[in-house]
Amino acid sequence: MRDVAVIGIGQTKVGEHWDKSLRDLTGDAALAAMANAQVGLVDSIYVGNMMSSVANQQLHLGAMVADWIGQRYTEAVKVESACSSGGSAFRSAYLAVASGEVDTALVVGVEKMTDSPSDEITSALATAADADWEVDHGLSFVGLNALLMKRYMFEHGWKGIDFAGFSINAHKNAVHNPFARFQKEIDEKKFINSPMICDPINLMDASSIGDGAAAVVIISAERLPSNAKKIMVAGSDSATDTISIHSRKTPTWLTAAEKSAKTAFTQAGIGPEDIGIFEYHDAFTIMAALSLEACGFAERGKGPVLALEGEIGIDGRIPVATRGGLKARGHPVGATGVYQIVEVIQQLRGEAGETQVPRPTFGLAQNIGGSGSNIVTHIFERVS
Amino acid sequence: MRDVAVIGIGQTKVGEHWDKSLRDLTGDAALAAMANAQVGLVDSIYVGNMMSSVANQQLHLGAMVADWIGQRYTEAVKVESACSSGGSAFRSAYLAVASGEVDTALVVGVEKMTDSPSDEITSALATAADADWEVDHGLSFVGLNALLMKRYMFEHGWKGIDFAGFSINAHKNAVHNPFARFQKEIDEKKFINSPMICDPINLMDASSIGDGAAAVVIISAERLPSNAKKIMVAGSDSATDTISIHSRKTPTWLTAAEKSAKTAFTQAGIGPEDIGIFEYHDAFTIMAALSLEACGFAERGKGPVLALEGEIGIDGRIPVATRGGLKARGHPVGATGVYQIVEVIQQLRGEAGETQVPRPTFGLAQNIGGSGSNIVTHIFERVS
Repeated sequence: MRDVAVIGIGQTKVGEHWDKSLRDLTGDAALAAMANAQVGLVDSIYVGNMMSSVANQQLHLGAMVADWIGQRYTEAVKVESACSSGGSAFRSAYLAVASGEVDTALVVGVEKMTDSPSDEITSALATAADADWEVDHGLSFVGLNALLMKRYMFEHGWKGIDFAGFSINAHKNAVHNPFARFQKEIDEKKFINSPMICDPINLMDASSIGDGAAAVVIISAERLPSNAKKIMVAGSDSATDTISIHSRKTPTWLTAAEKSAKTAFTQAGIGPEDIGIFEYHDAFTIMAALSLEACGFAERGKGPVLALEGEIGIDGRIPVATRGGLKARGHPVGATGVYQIVEVIQQLRGEAGETQVPRPTFGLAQNIGGSGSNIVTHIFERVS
Repeated sequence: MRDVAVIGIGQTKVGEHWDKSLRDLTGDAALAAMANAQVGLVDSIYVGNMMSSVANQQLHLGAMVADWIGQRYTEAVKVESACSSGGSAFRSAYLAVASGEVDTALVVGVEKMTDSPSDEITSALATAADADWEVDHGLSFVGLNALLMKRYMFEHGWKGIDFAGFSINAHKNAVHNPFARFQKEIDEKKFINSPMICDPINLMDASSIGDGAAAVVIISAERLPSNAKKIMVAGSDSATDTISIHSRKTPTWLTAAEKSAKTAFTQAGIGPEDIGIFEYHDAFTIMAALSLEACGFAERGKGPVLALEGEIGIDGRIPVATRGGLKARGHPVGATGVYQIVEVIQQLRGEAGETQVPRPTFGLAQNIGGSGSNIVTHIFERVS
């Protein structure tokens, strides 16, 4: 397999884009990444998207994007794995370049959610879960995460407030990210007083959906221009778990996160202690805790300790959600995995401004689909 | 890139499967292919599907399938490119094995369409076209193909009846395929008397949707057991075109078919004259004619001649739809591209029974998404 480098990144602000269509958003991010990469054309295109058929009455986004950005005839497909679609699209692009089939590839993740009524979006989000054995029994996606959080709190003795640090950290960092949906801080009082959505998940435990698109251009290492920053894909893996939570022996452990992270660490020849920045999938604070544990940054049941002890801040042991995370940057589902990668690259390039982590060498991006049913892990390395 | 062989195939009958869920169908085809391949586990799974979010309220089919067939934790994603999703899923699997990342991969295409009201399915099919510039103006998918056929008939002087041979051939072959939806012949009288759906497309010009799943297991050549039949992927490419037909300079020419076929021919080191069997994408008879032309089997505007002169039969110059094609085997959209590949492999293995083409060496499978907006072409070669 050939070595693969990231050469361009682009993104739109996450928010309610009433003036932009699905096509506009996708094109804006894609063209920004291509301009950033200084390439005119790529060899193939991979789109990460979850729910455009329901939210926008449009499938076939590969062909739509290729045409729209002036890449007519270029190979282009969509990859879907629920909320981890962005990460999966990146991995498909990575394998295409690593294989030798193509030299350059564009990955663009997009979701345009706010045009549709919120009940339709709630239903569309639930298609990530098991239709027959979860959703048909009345469970929504937040409902599933609430059950998981309740179980976790019961098993390990945590209270709701113990998760506040994850959200406070995310909002603190988002203040400095012009692409974040919520560029404002929250404090513990705000967290405590926020309305309960689905006990024990309150509004501040939950990330916000939104419209957004993010894009990355990758290139085979041998084609990387000599003056370009050398940011390499050092590890890439994905793994599944049961689609329904109740089928898992240990619902409070993300086996697919552990498995894909371990493989990626082995590929990169490093361990968790070498990671300088971690863009994790904090769709809910429970997912933040579980991800930290499964990836080896905290012992089992001890995820919240990292937030309570300030270890996840920019100057902490393992900086997370450095650009706001899903909580405050926002979670346009099919785009999220690509936003995470864009943000890791910003950090490795030293372009993260006021939330810049001092000279990280390795960055980790982990994208979760469903309630841990598909998890895609990537490690990036700054070589020069 | 490593050489890749096809080692297992499986399929369900296309039809109205009231007793089978999306999950059942997918599992049945996947497990049949794995039994046929004599492998217990694969390294990764690629699912081709178009409309399960609308038709079955279920996305995230990768995780669903991996879990269901006893492959928990295995990497699994869905690939979507409208009606060419099956072909695109196969190509993603091919690249993963060719890259060296995985040694074995399962491709399964599935669509479960008959549970939903037909107006919902008509709307879902239209998501393959341009939502903003075609569908919002009232065009359905058959409407788009009707406009295309009308233009083609005007440009080249054909009448509706001149396309009958494509459908008659497909039904004739389907009689002998136990997995085909319609195992009965039709004649010219039946064709002429069939109801008009959208002028000039009548019921016998159009393929039938349906429920179905088909699966293929591939393996790196170096791992192919010595006693296995050696059927290799000799060519693989895909290309896009504009998503809306009106944006094309020449709507009656499938540029993406020509482009991907040419690349695949070059990779295989052969030309159209070397192809022994062609499973084409006869969603409508107009697509049959255009495919034959774009792939080099007929001159421009002369596609119907092949049907009129009996060149497309089992003993003809270029046998097509040898197991019934989309017309008579049926067109479960996201599964179709995988059915085509299964059928080409049957022919190359000599397992096509009464519609067996005498000892073909090369077989072509071409899967079309939208109105020619994404086209995936594969060439398979019997080596031993």
